Amino acid sequence: MAITFICPDRDTTSWIQALKELDPTLEIRVWPKDHPRAEIELALTWNHPKGVLQEYPSLGCICSMGAGIDHLLTDPSLPDPDLPGNPAIVRLVDQKLAWDMSEYLLLAVLHHFRQFNFYQAQKKENNWQPLLPLGKKEMVIGIMGLGQLGKAAAKRLQKAGFYVCGWRDSPKEIDTIPTFHGRDQLDVFLSRAHILICLLPLTRQTRQILNQDTFSKLPHGAYLINVGRGDHLKEADLLTALDQGLLSGACLDVFQTEPLPGDHPFWQHPKIVITPHISSQTNPTSVAPQILSNLDRLRTGKSLLNQINIKKEY
Amino acid sequence: MAITFICPDRDTTSWIQALKELDPTLEIRVWPKDHPRAEIELALTWNHPKGVLQEYPSLGCICSMGAGIDHLLTDPSLPDPDLPGNPAIVRLVDQKLAWDMSEYLLLAVLHHFRQFNFYQAQKKENNWQPLLPLGKKEMVIGIMGLGQLGKAAAKRLQKAGFYVCGWRDSPKEIDTIPTFHGRDQLDVFLSRAHILICLLPLTRQTRQILNQDTFSKLPHGAYLINVGRGDHLKEADLLTALDQGLLSGACLDVFQTEPLPGDHPFWQHPKIVITPHISSQTNPTSVAPQILSNLDRLRTGKSLLNQINIKKEY
Repeated sequence: MAITFICPDRDTTSWIQALKELDPTLEIRVWPKDHPRAEIELALTWNHPKGVLQEYPSLGCICSMGAGIDHLLTDPSLPDPDLPGNPAIVRLVDQKLAWDMSEYLLLAVLHHFRQFNFYQAQKKENNWQPLLPLGKKEMVIGIMGLGQLGKAAAKRLQKAGFYVCGWRDSPKEIDTIPTFHGRDQLDVFLSRAHILICLLPLTRQTRQILNQDTFSKLPHGAYLINVGRGDHLKEADLLTALDQGLLSGACLDVFQTEPLPGDHPFWQHPKIVITPHISSQTNPTSVAPQILSNLDRLRTGKSLLNQINIKKEY
Repeated sequence: MAITFICPDRDTTSWIQALKELDPTLEIRVWPKDHPRAEIELALTWNHPKGVLQEYPSLGCICSMGAGIDHLLTDPSLPDPDLPGNPAIVRLVDQKLAWDMSEYLLLAVLHHFRQFNFYQAQKKENNWQPLLPLGKKEMVIGIMGLGQLGKAAAKRLQKAGFYVCGWRDSPKEIDTIPTFHGRDQLDVFLSRAHILICLLPLTRQTRQILNQDTFSKLPHGAYLINVGRGDHLKEADLLTALDQGLLSGACLDVFQTEPLPGDHPFWQHPKIVITPHISSQTNPTSVAPQILSNLDRLRTGKSLLNQINIKKEY
């Protein structure tokens, strides 16, 4: 029996190394290389070619190589994991992922709060112009999505002295973080967020949730940080909101099309900070034990770690 | 009796407001306006005109409007505070100052560590190029100067997961921060610092301490952050070190001449991040109680808060 990687355009060297270090006997295949498809028990996937998972008759577990599973759910031929006999779907939960994400968000927030974007624009013009410091009370941070990553980010930003509130789909007490929930409370939440961070899972409900209507409900001149998925954002609406001054700027790590096409208007927009999907990268060494543990649980019939809820799409 | 501000080109409105809020009866003058010089007990100063302090016969205390006092010590006519009858010299110690400085340094460090400068250069060229993340073990931070600000920054950067060591002039145990001291241990300290932060006071010993010789002892491609004083840095040597690759970049908040002249080569240098001396700005509201307390201590003959050691120059 063996496991396989199905992740076109992604280098698997460090993943294989991390797994082999923990279990040198583990048999590992990499798609699309030839081997008997029936030997595969577990598939590690990222942007797999649609339909390819059906080629593996003995598959017991499909494991996303990141925290998101939207790349799996967009495959119409994905076997329903709730039906008996079909493979379970799990994702990787990495404490380091949450830490790295919160670090990126702290950087993006401070970059805005300490007016680095302004000073870098001034530098281009050889212009020395100190601004008055901004106050944290006038810079409330609203986080959409309070899962593993959202909660960790909220707490870290709170420790950095910021006022943080959150929004999620269903009610849930989250200690120390004032939390709004559901469509009913969305407008109130938005009206408070001078910095809006999107860390939502991508679902039918959240697709294009960052649109003109949403932006118009934020305090005037709010700042947007999107580290969720590119499809959370209606990209044309962002350009309009920046032009109209509804938003004062944005920091984007994810895009509808990645890599971001060379002729995309975001590249040369002076109010947009762009990073190439690096806010948090899953660390193979840190998640290898989790993968092996799920392989063991699969073989011994135990319930799997970090299994996803297919109804909720995350 | 009264106090006076002697700080050309600086707006005193918020300072006067903060002091008046605590003591509405306080008499406050602002240099160079006319008034009897003999009524002044305490002078708040920043870049005062040399010699002007001798016009105040009843002066009991000279208070720097910031943490540094180098702007006082460069006045050759400054009365020696160790001689009886001469005014004492104090500085403002502001917890918020230390917090703001550590926040700025965290931002400057993360900006380098998460390769934002690289990504912003790529953005100019519409270029999507994710880099491998850097490791914190390979990014040791060395802080020169472990006073109030240095210690606070060291602890904050440690909490952010970085390996931090420090260097100061004389030996002193600083819990959890490995600390080198004196000229003898400077080279060993420098050899470890992938990110070198200067938070030293400006003295005869530390003037131009950031020079080619210093840079050559750092790990190749180290990163410099100067938030001390412009005169800590030999500016021409920084340009050479960047050209030679000894340094990979720098973030500067202070300069030999401020405002940085419009024709200075730093402005257009792609590897230098520039901010206009905003890393930490003394907050009048937060230091007003300290000023009033020293005025009271002066009047009742008690020892003053935050008195400086003139021999050490800080």
